[in-house]
Amino acid sequence: MTNLVTLDELREAHKRVTGAVVRTPLLPCPHGDADRPLWLKPESLQPIGAFKLRGAHNLIASLTDEERARGVVAHSSGNHAQAVAYTARRFGIRAVIVMPDTAPAVKVEATRALGAEIVMVTPDRRDTAAFELAEEHGYTAVPPYDDRRIIAGQGTAGLEIAEDLPDASTVLVPVSGGGLISGIATAVKSLRPDTKVIGVEPELAADAAESLRTGVRATWPSEATYRTIADGLRTTSLGELPFAHVLRYVDDIVTVSEDQIRAAVRFLGRSARLVAEPSGAVATAAYLFRRDALPPGRDHVAVVSGGNVDPALYAQLI
Amino acid sequence: MTNLVTLDELREAHKRVTGAVVRTPLLPCPHGDADRPLWLKPESLQPIGAFKLRGAHNLIASLTDEERARGVVAHSSGNHAQAVAYTARRFGIRAVIVMPDTAPAVKVEATRALGAEIVMVTPDRRDTAAFELAEEHGYTAVPPYDDRRIIAGQGTAGLEIAEDLPDASTVLVPVSGGGLISGIATAVKSLRPDTKVIGVEPELAADAAESLRTGVRATWPSEATYRTIADGLRTTSLGELPFAHVLRYVDDIVTVSEDQIRAAVRFLGRSARLVAEPSGAVATAAYLFRRDALPPGRDHVAVVSGGNVDPALYAQLI
Repeated sequence: MTNLVTLDELREAHKRVTGAVVRTPLLPCPHGDADRPLWLKPESLQPIGAFKLRGAHNLIASLTDEERARGVVAHSSGNHAQAVAYTARRFGIRAVIVMPDTAPAVKVEATRALGAEIVMVTPDRRDTAAFELAEEHGYTAVPPYDDRRIIAGQGTAGLEIAEDLPDASTVLVPVSGGGLISGIATAVKSLRPDTKVIGVEPELAADAAESLRTGVRATWPSEATYRTIADGLRTTSLGELPFAHVLRYVDDIVTVSEDQIRAAVRFLGRSARLVAEPSGAVATAAYLFRRDALPPGRDHVAVVSGGNVDPALYAQLI
Repeated sequence: MTNLVTLDELREAHKRVTGAVVRTPLLPCPHGDADRPLWLKPESLQPIGAFKLRGAHNLIASLTDEERARGVVAHSSGNHAQAVAYTARRFGIRAVIVMPDTAPAVKVEATRALGAEIVMVTPDRRDTAAFELAEEHGYTAVPPYDDRRIIAGQGTAGLEIAEDLPDASTVLVPVSGGGLISGIATAVKSLRPDTKVIGVEPELAADAAESLRTGVRATWPSEATYRTIADGLRTTSLGELPFAHVLRYVDDIVTVSEDQIRAAVRFLGRSARLVAEPSGAVATAAYLFRRDALPPGRDHVAVVSGGNVDPALYAQLI
């Protein structure tokens, strides 16, 4: 049986990240349904524009001085890269980021601007390239989600939700590799067992929904998942450790269409004054358009997980 | 000598607004100058998209039950209207909003959606129309800035800045009628006398800058001020009570060009994931483009005062 992340690990993580990440407020959104108040957890307001800072900071802050002196390596197409780069700069250590050459230019540039060294590879090479660099130079690998320090860090957002809105009926969380929902579900279910934790995926990348339904960790072909506009949610399967948390704590995973994702980006910009990337808007899309699939309940929280969107695409969406 | 708003009034106001307004975080922005960290106070994240909620809530919460039962009236072309409507709905009381027929459609609709009754008048009639309605029906008028309860309410944002970043060297605040800067300056100067408080206006509506320079409250023609894209800052003069606070507490008022305002809207969207309206972006514009005019100092706070912008205009700006 897998050894799940504990509430104590989450609380230790919260101490570590305090002062380094923004304690995001829970924003009441007056444009939700009258009988179902909507609250937004805007992780897009973290300095790098996404929740990923929580996990990266928790992991790097947990390293020994010697490990930190050797530097860190990560592979990521986007927000995780910026989180590792930002945190490394904060600690004054070296960060090497392996990126697929398909990554959006806006994310590559943002990562470089934070002082990281970028190594570009073809998508199939990115896992092995990072491991090779770690081996060769003694860097510590910072995985994007399949790590208990990462899960504990992302879960600090869940501690804050449980503290700010203890009576939430439903918490909606985007799902990709599963680090964020694992951490949030651990926090919320440990503190408020009656609150429902619901994952949200694009229909085009619904491997986690399938995995939860069948009890077997599914892998979708990347040719399928790469069709979604939600570029942060194209991961083809849940991580192994996140999958164990999803099975234990997550009530359901629902899917949203591409049109619903676009409409939610627009809604967040107009009604909540938040720039959300498509991946960051899927939980709000589920609130707006998938009431049929959600458990009944009053106060709903939608996690807005990130806001790093290409400006040209954003202008078109809004 | 004018009786200025006191720190005690601000603290009382803060107790009243707690729970009703969002305690906005101070967001570190990693895209500022390395030697001059930039922090953003995102009042655009208030449920109605602007700081105006603070003052309106403080005033309406200060009324007697009998006064509240009769209802409130306000005249406003925008964010103040939404603030009064939202607060009235929260208290379950009647709100009548007098609006100039030049108000942006997005703001009119948003106010109506919050349950207020809208009375449209030509711009020259809006002051008198509100007074007449107040007289006829016994409504309490909720002025947009020339009122100590409004100033004290807006100033609660200043208490939060002083608490969150006690060593701020400079706080940059948009100026229109002067309620916001009066409240913030009172808070900041009372608690941290060494922090500089700098107002920011569009060049096209720089009546307050002139007023501070000459010591005489200037009025600019509305044909002049209506040329700025910053529609929330087109007020033609400071209020009388705000002017007294500006003279007492504000270190300087600087101006920004229309191009600088547009660039700041873009910067806030891309680098801070905040949808800002042009009026809400002027303080950030001063940080980005008017370093020459600002006092030397390290940590700068720019107040992002609002985010209610027409989506078509926003798409064009971004």
